[in-house]
Formats: sequence, structure tokens, C-alpha cells
Amino acid sequence: MIGLMQKHPLIVSSLIEHAGKAPPTAAVVSRTLEGSIHRCTYSDIERRAKQVALALTALGVQQGERIGTLAWNGYRHLELFYGVSGFGAVLHTANPRLFPEQLAYIINHAEDQYLFFDSCFLPLIEKLAPHLKTVKRFIVMTDRLHVPATTITDLLCYEELIAQNSGGYSWPHLDEDAASSLCYTSGTTGNPKGVLYSHRSTVLHAMLLCMADGFALTAADSVLLASPMFHVNAWGAPYAAVMIGARTLLPGPALDGASLYRMMRDEEATAATGVPTVWLMFQQFVHEQALRPRQELKLRRVLVGGAAVPPAVVETFERVFGTRVLHAWGMTETSPVATMCNPLKKHALFSEVERIDLQRKQGRVPYGVSLRIVDEGGAALPHDGVTSGRLFVRGHWIASEYFRGEGGGILDKDGWFDTGDIATVDSDGYMQITDRAKDVIKSGGEWISSIDLENAAVGHVAIAEAAAIGLPHPKWQERPLLVVVKRPGLELTKDELRAHLSKRLPSGGCRMTSSSSQSFRTQQLESYRK
Amino acid sequence: MIGLMQKHPLIVSSLIEHAGKAPPTAAVVSRTLEGSIHRCTYSDIERRAKQVALALTALGVQQGERIGTLAWNGYRHLELFYGVSGFGAVLHTANPRLFPEQLAYIINHAEDQYLFFDSCFLPLIEKLAPHLKTVKRFIVMTDRLHVPATTITDLLCYEELIAQNSGGYSWPHLDEDAASSLCYTSGTTGNPKGVLYSHRSTVLHAMLLCMADGFALTAADSVLLASPMFHVNAWGAPYAAVMIGARTLLPGPALDGASLYRMMRDEEATAATGVPTVWLMFQQFVHEQALRPRQELKLRRVLVGGAAVPPAVVETFERVFGTRVLHAWGMTETSPVATMCNPLKKHALFSEVERIDLQRKQGRVPYGVSLRIVDEGGAALPHDGVTSGRLFVRGHWIASEYFRGEGGGILDKDGWFDTGDIATVDSDGYMQITDRAKDVIKSGGEWISSIDLENAAVGHVAIAEAAAIGLPHPKWQERPLLVVVKRPGLELTKDELRAHLSKRLPSGGCRMTSSSSQSFRTQQLESYRK
Repeated sequence: MIGLMQKHPLIVSSLIEHAGKAPPTAAVVSRTLEGSIHRCTYSDIERRAKQVALALTALGVQQGERIGTLAWNGYRHLELFYGVSGFGAVLHTANPRLFPEQLAYIINHAEDQYLFFDSCFLPLIEKLAPHLKTVKRFIVMTDRLHVPATTITDLLCYEELIAQNSGGYSWPHLDEDAASSLCYTSGTTGNPKGVLYSHRSTVLHAMLLCMADGFALTAADSVLLASPMFHVNAWGAPYAAVMIGARTLLPGPALDGASLYRMMRDEEATAATGVPTVWLMFQQFVHEQALRPRQELKLRRVLVGGAAVPPAVVETFERVFGTRVLHAWGMTETSPVATMCNPLKKHALFSEVERIDLQRKQGRVPYGVSLRIVDEGGAALPHDGVTSGRLFVRGHWIASEYFRGEGGGILDKDGWFDTGDIATVDSDGYMQITDRAKDVIKSGGEWISSIDLENAAVGHVAIAEAAAIGLPHPKWQERPLLVVVKRPGLELTKDELRAHLSKRLPSGGCRMTSSSSQSFRTQQLESYRK
Repeated sequence: MIGLMQKHPLIVSSLIEHAGKAPPTAAVVSRTLEGSIHRCTYSDIERRAKQVALALTALGVQQGERIGTLAWNGYRHLELFYGVSGFGAVLHTANPRLFPEQLAYIINHAEDQYLFFDSCFLPLIEKLAPHLKTVKRFIVMTDRLHVPATTITDLLCYEELIAQNSGGYSWPHLDEDAASSLCYTSGTTGNPKGVLYSHRSTVLHAMLLCMADGFALTAADSVLLASPMFHVNAWGAPYAAVMIGARTLLPGPALDGASLYRMMRDEEATAATGVPTVWLMFQQFVHEQALRPRQELKLRRVLVGGAAVPPAVVETFERVFGTRVLHAWGMTETSPVATMCNPLKKHALFSEVERIDLQRKQGRVPYGVSLRIVDEGGAALPHDGVTSGRLFVRGHWIASEYFRGEGGGILDKDGWFDTGDIATVDSDGYMQITDRAKDVIKSGGEWISSIDLENAAVGHVAIAEAAAIGLPHPKWQERPLLVVVKRPGLELTKDELRAHLSKRLPSGGCRMTSSSSQSFRTQQLESYRK
């Protein structure tokens, strides 16, 4: 017996259609490539996204065809998010930071029909163009005044293209399972693989970000997206902010501390998203300039993902900014948010130190995602906060296979996706990544977490960045090598670093072995034995 | 092109399956009919809900068949919410407060196959039984010890029934569009009509309640459901709390002020749901007992719906309790939450008086619901906060037709549902119900809101309840008659009430006419002329 409720598809265009009816206050604030600030409403975004859809129609694009972008976070990119997916084509946000060979491979593999790009990427486009087999025309995302001289044949100007297509348009009623966007994940082995998001997975994931136990976005928020729109659709934030009617702050290419700080202050950002590296640079800038973020900013919370967040970053946000860090975990294949570290009732009694410690964990799965950790034989491991195993996930916004079948089946027989991460899960359900399966340092039967070493290292004031890698070793199989970058103007000796690490490494600390000055044995992972 | 994401159905069993994996702390606290407190985990609820599903299988129930309940808010009722819907049958929560004739009509119309009931309703069941045409067996929701003597043939005992069915069970993979539950709406004209919710509509509606701009439920919350589970599934809260892993507090039949206060205090309720009448009684109790709720309770917010919330209730919650009122609007046909009054950024600058005034409004539509107001010819009216018109809604959790086609088509040609309410919408999108279309008092070409009159009246300390109705009038067509119930021990004269009302009625206040001492002409609705 079928229920008697209205059935509307969960499609991307329904988000901007909803937001387009919101009050006509400035909703999207973008820093342009030229450095100026551009403001518009969601109603403007919807109107122009419809012009994009009309332009695609005029260009002969068919539903399901891929449309590429090479662009920073800006309002025109947001228009493409809605115009391309809303029309029924597939938005392929390519990462301009990749090597040109990888980019050419990805764009050819996606079979992009048209390629929209920010004018700053013209040199890259000119280099790529001869190698692109399916792209019919290139569109530079600017107005006629700013179209650069180029060798590209028949380069189209975005503003002219959409101005020619301003008639009436109604969003088509798409199948919610249809593909809406495409992102490639650049693994370290093999060719990049495409993850093909559906309208439904995109909308459900956006709902998660709006949940009070998700990223808790509200219409009263102003959210700054320092996560690039070419990284898993800026983690879904451009959909969530539109869904809930929050203001969206788009910083363009300017992700340096000074630019982010200025935009946060001037636009009263209450929330932000970004990887740990961005926040490390940001906090360093604030420290160097002796700024007073607690007084000058309204930043309440920051969503951090993409890599484990160093406790020092959490601590600085808490103590210097009065900002709560929401540690999340995910990957391109998981849309990306699969876990978030929100507190339970009992954590209200935690001390600040305990809270910051809790935030080392990547958190619990929300409704819609399940997780399990298993040993090498595939047997389920206990959720005791100590035993680490290979992390598998399943859920509404987890990939079922890669685009064009690359890599073959990626789910096990029960539908679980192997993340390639090693993790523990505690009795409250909090998951913590201890390493990438391929990065874990296998030393004498123990698995040493490269992440733990790196986090402990960057907790030292004199260290800006750190990387731990495994070196082959005749006796121990592997031994860790820690490479650090010092902060400008600060000094640090090997002994000072050793002393710092021996205090910081959790669960019994680290034991220095005499065989190698770069080696550590942590007790933490002893329980996980092969 | 179909996206390559995992596809899992949005079904009710997936909620309890998710919550069942949560930490094994007490999650559901119920006051039993006998007055004792019962505690269990969501894992317990899932285990026993599976036993319910096994029992339905043993009883020969087919998927899609209706299973009735006549019960208060308690853990066994919650088990039926998940056991019946999870199995694939349709949970029909009948309202024990209806007249027996109405109940018999509803249960026969629903064709309930089995009827579960709280033992306190046995006299009602004995009266109903001879008139029920489809019910095969009755199950009393208690253990053998508490089964009362009865004339009912072959009465089953809930605890015995499920104890006999404790084997392994996996939730079936249902179609998410399948019916999950059924509620009847008792209109004042014609027979009651059934609204048949789907699994999908139920889950999407629960997501709304978990949104930060919804009811903002989190895993750290303890939510007391003073909205009965037979009223539109307790407004979806039993699904939302389980989805997010909040503690659920179920007060049983004890909705008096003393019982609610004790449960809130002892169980540290942070959130609650209920109709204005419950909160009026509750606040009166707190006032009479001179309690100190701000010190003794942890109540952060209260979801109020079912009728317009009197500003005095909002004010008392804000000032005496330190509790925010979340004013919501909906009906059985809308699952029920269709609008909620959460603030925008600009409201942060509002004074307390302005905030309380904003909360008179029923709020904005979330993503998933659209609204429009139209005149009697069906033309759209402006969103200016003044012009009132007939309210239409559409969305994911709005009914498309009534069960078994009663009442014929209920959507207009564009898919909009006519709510029968009269409302204004302001330029920020905040909707305010001004009256039921059938309750509006039509006086000399003006529409006078019975709700405004009632709200103004209950704002007086000496008035406990008020009702405004229209009386036929030869000259004015209708004139309002205000009927009030005084609080015990307090006095009030007609002149004092008039003076109170003339200050309280908004937009120019009220003008007393000489023709009738009970009559008022408000300016407020002048702009809405037929």
C-alpha cells in the first residue's frame, strides 16, 4: 500500500528555487579575481542560473552530458552549480591544482562538452586545449571587459553567453537519482577516478549539514567557504547554505590569512569550512599580527576536514578565537561528510582539556551513514576506542561505483565501501582515524600512526608543518622518519623536539630506541596486531 | 544518466536501526499507567519492536494492513511505532478522546486488523468491540499481572504476545513510498478523513525537526513529548528523537502541570512539545506553586503548535523559565510541521518585546514546503505582513489525497493543498494564521480574527481560557461574542476586560461599538476585503 503524500523529487534546483523566495537581502558575497567584493541575492543566483540553463539549451547540451569547470569559489561558479545541475547536465568541478596531464586525463575521461573557467586559468587552458578530445567550446567566467587575449579558438564570454539567454525558464522535473555532479579523486596509485553524485544524495547530504548535530547551519548564519568548490563541491556547503538560506561568503582565490580574516570580519562570518592547512596559516597570521579575533570576529564554529585536525588548531580556535571546531571526516566517495564530532549530553561536564581531547576524534556517524571496523580477515572489531581496524562505510551519500566503472566493484558483498583508512571506534560511537592503510608505519608487528606523529610535532610552537613517513628497515620492517618545517625566526634542536614528542604521544608516550634517532615506538596501537 | 551513489530507502525501520547502535545508556524514559518510571535503551526498543514484527507475522498480518492503537505516550507505543511500520504494516494511532461513535467509524474505515490498547481504555474497548467489523483480536499493552478482567473474547496480552516471538528478525527492505502510518483528522463537517503517511515523508519530516532551523534536536537533548502520539504521531518527534539519538521522555496519561514539571526536573528535559492548552495549565501550576523553573529545570525550548500560541505563554516561558518558544504551524495533512518561527540574522538586534512579538507568527517554511496565500478568486496575494488570504501549501510531507479517496481531490491543478486557514505572510516570509476560514467573523465587509480576540483575552491575568465566536447579526452579518473562563479566585469586570482588550488589540486597537457590548471592530484586517 502506497502512502498518500505528495511526491516531489529531491533535486538540486529545488534548493535554489526555495532560496530564491527568501528576503531580498544580500545573500552571496564574493571576492572577485580582481579583488573587489560582489554582492547578490539568491534570487539573482536563481535568475542567472536559469540563464545558464537556457545557454546550455542553446549550445545543444543534452541532459546527462558533463560540463566542466576550473574555477575558484565565486558567485559565477555558484550559478553553474545550480544552472548546470538544475538543467539536468552533470557539473564536473575539476581541480586546477592538479598536474596538466592529470587534468587532461580527467576532462577527457569525463567527456566534458563545455569547459567554464576563471580567467586566471587561461594559461592552463591554452596548454590543455590541444589535448582535450571532447570539449566543444571554452567559456571564460567574466565579462567582455575582462576577457583576456588568447590563442583559444572561439572563446566564449560568460556574461555575453548568459545575457543572450534571458527568457522564461522552469526547472525541469528530473529524476532524483539522476547524476548532478562529478568529482575525481586523485589516488596515489592508478588513474584518478570519478565519483558521480546524484541529486538525491546531494540534497540528503545538505540536510545533514543543516542538522543541529551536523554543521547546524541556520538562516542567521554567514558561512565562509574556504574549502574550494572543486573539492567535493566545497563539502556540500553551497547546497546546505542555499537550502537553509544562510549567507554564503566566497573568498575567490584568496585563501591567505589576511584575506580570510578581512572577509570574516567585514562580513561577520559566523561559520567557516576549510582544511587544517588553511587554518594553520590563518592562525599563524593572526598570531603574527597580534590580532584580537575574539573581539573582532563573530566566528562561532569551523568545520574542519580533509585531514585530521591537529589538537593545537582546536586549542587555538577555542582559546584565542572563542570558536568551536567541528572535526569531520570523509572523502570524495562520501560526499564528503560521513562523521562529525558533536558532543553528547555527558560531555557538557567535560573540562576544556577533555573537550579538546574529544575533538581529536572525527566523530560519530549521523543517520544515513553506517560504519564498521574490521580486521584483515574482514571480521568485525570491537568498539572499545583502542582496537583499530580498516574502516568501512555505507549510506545514502556513499558511492556505489566509480564513473565509467573504473576500478571495478568497490563495495563488498554486503554493500560496504572500503575507505582505505585505519580507525578506532569508542563505546560512544566516536571514530578516530589512526592512519591511511597505506601510510601506516609497520614496525616490528606494531602499526605506528603517521598522523599521531605529525600531530604531536605541529603542537610545538616552532614547527609549521610536519610529515611522518615509513623507511624500510632490515630488522623492524619499517621505521618512522619525521620531517619538519620550522616556523620563520624560531629555532628548535633535535633534542628539544624529542623531549616535546615524548610528552605528547598518547597512551604511555613514546619510547626512543637506540637504533635510530628518528624512530619511535608508540604503545597506542599495540592492541592492533596482525 | 543515473548517479552512482548507494541507494537506501528512507524507511522508518532505518531510524531505530541507527539508534539501536547508539551507546547503551537510558534513552527512553516512560511514566507507566501505574505511575512508575520505566527506562530502556533504543537497542531495547529495537529488539522488542522486532518481536512486535515477528508477532504480526505469527498473527498472519500482511504488509499494508492497518494495525490500530489506542494508547498514551509510553515505551510500548513507541515499540509499535517501529514494530508495525518497520514490518511494513500501517500504524493507525486512533485518538481515544473522540466520541465512541467517531472511533468506531474511524477504526472500521481504516479496516484495522488488530487493535493494541492501554489497559485504561478497556471500558472504551468493551463498548466499541461489538461495532468493530474488521478487528480480529485485541491486545492489551501490559504484562499478564496487569491484564484486567474483561468481556472481550480472546484478549491478548502484549508482553506474552511478543515474548512468544523473540527469534531473529531483519527489517524488510520496504519501498520508501509505502504507507507507514495513518491518522484521522476530525473536521467539524463530514466524517473524519484519514491521512496516510509514507515512510519517506515521515523520515524527511523527522530530518526537519533535527535541523538547527527546525526543532534543532541533538543527541545531547532530552525531549519530553507532551503532544500525544495519537496526534499526528506526536508531531513526528518519536521519529526525530530516534533519528538523532536524543533521549525521549514519555509522560503517559499524566499531562497535568505537576506531573510534567516533575518529569522535566527529574529527567533534565531540555526540550518539549505540546499544545498551548497544556502549557497554559503547566504555567498556571508553576505560578500557583511558586516554583523556580529557571533554577530547577534545564528546559531550553518548547515546540508549540496545534493552535496559535498566546503571547502571554511565550512571555512567561521567556521570562520565568528562560525557555525559548518555537511556534510552529501545521495540521494532520502536513505531518504536521509546515512552518516554524526561527529567527533571522537581523532579529539578533531585536529587544525582548520585539522578539516575543515576532513569535506571535507561525514562521517560515523550511526547504521541502512551499506556501502561498490567495484571494477568493485564487489570485496570489502580496507578502506584506498585512494582506490576509487563504493559505495553500505543497511539499514532501503534505497529503495528496485522503485515505480511500474520501472527499475527492484535495489538491488544486498545480498541486497545492488548501489548508482552510486564513493567513498573512510578511516580506521576510513569516506566516501568521489570522483565522480558520470557517471561524473568521465576517462583520460588515471586514474579517475579524477570532484568534486575535482570544489571544488578547487570555493575556489578562484573571482569564484562564477564552473563545470568540460569530453571532448572526441583521446589519453587520456577524458580530463577535467573546466567552471567557476566569481563573479561580480572581475577579474581573466587563469594563476591565474592555479596557484590557482596547490596549491589546494590534494595529490601531479596537473600537467599541454602541450596538453591542460584546462587539469589536478591528482595523487589522481591513485590507482584506471580499
